Amino acid sequence: MTLETVSTNKSFGGTQGVYRHASAETGTDMTFAVFLPPQAEAPGAKLPVLWYLSGLTCTHANVMEKGEYRRVAAELGVIIVCPDTSPRGDDVPDDEGYDFGKGAGFYVDATAEPWRANYRMYSYVTRELPGIVAAHFPADMDRQAITGHSMGGHGALTIALKQPARFRSVSAFAPISAPGQCPWGHKALGGYLGEDRSGWRAHDATALIEDGARVAEILVDQGAADNFLAEQLKPELLQAACETAGIALTLRMQPGYDHSYYFISTFMDDHIRWHAERLFAE
Amino acid sequence: MTLETVSTNKSFGGTQGVYRHASAETGTDMTFAVFLPPQAEAPGAKLPVLWYLSGLTCTHANVMEKGEYRRVAAELGVIIVCPDTSPRGDDVPDDEGYDFGKGAGFYVDATAEPWRANYRMYSYVTRELPGIVAAHFPADMDRQAITGHSMGGHGALTIALKQPARFRSVSAFAPISAPGQCPWGHKALGGYLGEDRSGWRAHDATALIEDGARVAEILVDQGAADNFLAEQLKPELLQAACETAGIALTLRMQPGYDHSYYFISTFMDDHIRWHAERLFAE
Repeated sequence: MTLETVSTNKSFGGTQGVYRHASAETGTDMTFAVFLPPQAEAPGAKLPVLWYLSGLTCTHANVMEKGEYRRVAAELGVIIVCPDTSPRGDDVPDDEGYDFGKGAGFYVDATAEPWRANYRMYSYVTRELPGIVAAHFPADMDRQAITGHSMGGHGALTIALKQPARFRSVSAFAPISAPGQCPWGHKALGGYLGEDRSGWRAHDATALIEDGARVAEILVDQGAADNFLAEQLKPELLQAACETAGIALTLRMQPGYDHSYYFISTFMDDHIRWHAERLFAE
Repeated sequence: MTLETVSTNKSFGGTQGVYRHASAETGTDMTFAVFLPPQAEAPGAKLPVLWYLSGLTCTHANVMEKGEYRRVAAELGVIIVCPDTSPRGDDVPDDEGYDFGKGAGFYVDATAEPWRANYRMYSYVTRELPGIVAAHFPADMDRQAITGHSMGGHGALTIALKQPARFRSVSAFAPISAPGQCPWGHKALGGYLGEDRSGWRAHDATALIEDGARVAEILVDQGAADNFLAEQLKPELLQAACETAGIALTLRMQPGYDHSYYFISTFMDDHIRWHAERLFAE
């Protein structure tokens, strides 16, 4: 497997890289970002990995440019991996909406036509890309954590709930907490998976917990002034499911904050430190 | 004078705002960014101001999105003001190069046609915009500092050298240290000011110092792997002038760093803390 280096920039003593490869899962070239902290240069280093999954309309670049994760990742010695949010390219089917098709993969493997050939972001993020990261970077794949924003918060929560042994910790910024119960989710899951809603539950954090999936704890920050809070994000549904299931959810409603990277960057330090406590625990 | 609020976003406990106004100096609408730290909400607050002048091709937005200044500015209680780099609009003369015309005002008042009507960034940044900031924000204009990147580092250095009483401190990231001795400067100063090079010296940090302008000290960070270092930036010329003049220049060559915001953001904390020590000194 060939990995093309698109760019590298020294930052906070480490290296912010962007890489491209031909993906077997999506049938397209895929681009992703990796920040290697300075500790990665030590001979034989194997560092823990924090995955960050991005939201609607984003690529790997939004959080790389605006997420302000490098300072603390460099301090603590954590690798940050930021995938793209969908397959890309002229041959990939798309939708005219910002919330479906390119930029809106929702971290599922599509089963419906015409999406099923390329829109395989669940397998890409959980299987193919981890293999590439393990092969090309000094990553300790026994110490992984995952977070994300909005659609990517949905991705982080559902992936961690479906593969709890793979992640030491999971958090989210303003996640789509119950896609089976909001317009973004109805459109995406209906489009990619078809209208049989029983199949949606495996890609809905709240439904997964209701159906028995478990993680020990979850950290969520949510802006109280987020325009999408009431209609799309619905953290109260995740909260209710966690309470019933005995999952220790820390849901922090942040007064005045919206859905933007001005919000995410404010609480990025907290999330990385919270994950690092768990990634570095013996 | 009417100030239009383009956007505000809560971030790091404060407010990142973008504002627009009709500029008498440039004859155009001008946009700028202001970060108000949380301390600005205290009744009667008057906070020090750090100006950040951006480089070629930039607007107010580049540093606002990628500069990572809000965390420390919020911690210390410093207002950050980020102007645009040139007049904008369909009626404003432009050049096909990225390094002249729109996005490349060089912080001078143009005297040559067709630039002289609109390209008045020196007066805009040093007179008009400070008046607006003083009138609309809780700014203590007796406590100002200035910094900038590349062309904006040139702007910060020359403005501080020409108005030393107005600024308690001046720093720069990878500044154009001697525009009279590099291609970017030859093009810009020749175009805006005309080919009589004697007029250029008032907008050249190295020449200003040679001609007697003084500040007590300067902090400069410069990436050693910056592609523009040898041909355009030439910190060694500033260094020689400072040595002769007895100006305490701290020039830090940073191994491996380039000219990008990955470099700037790495050292932004240091610069804000350095300015804050001087802004808050009795």
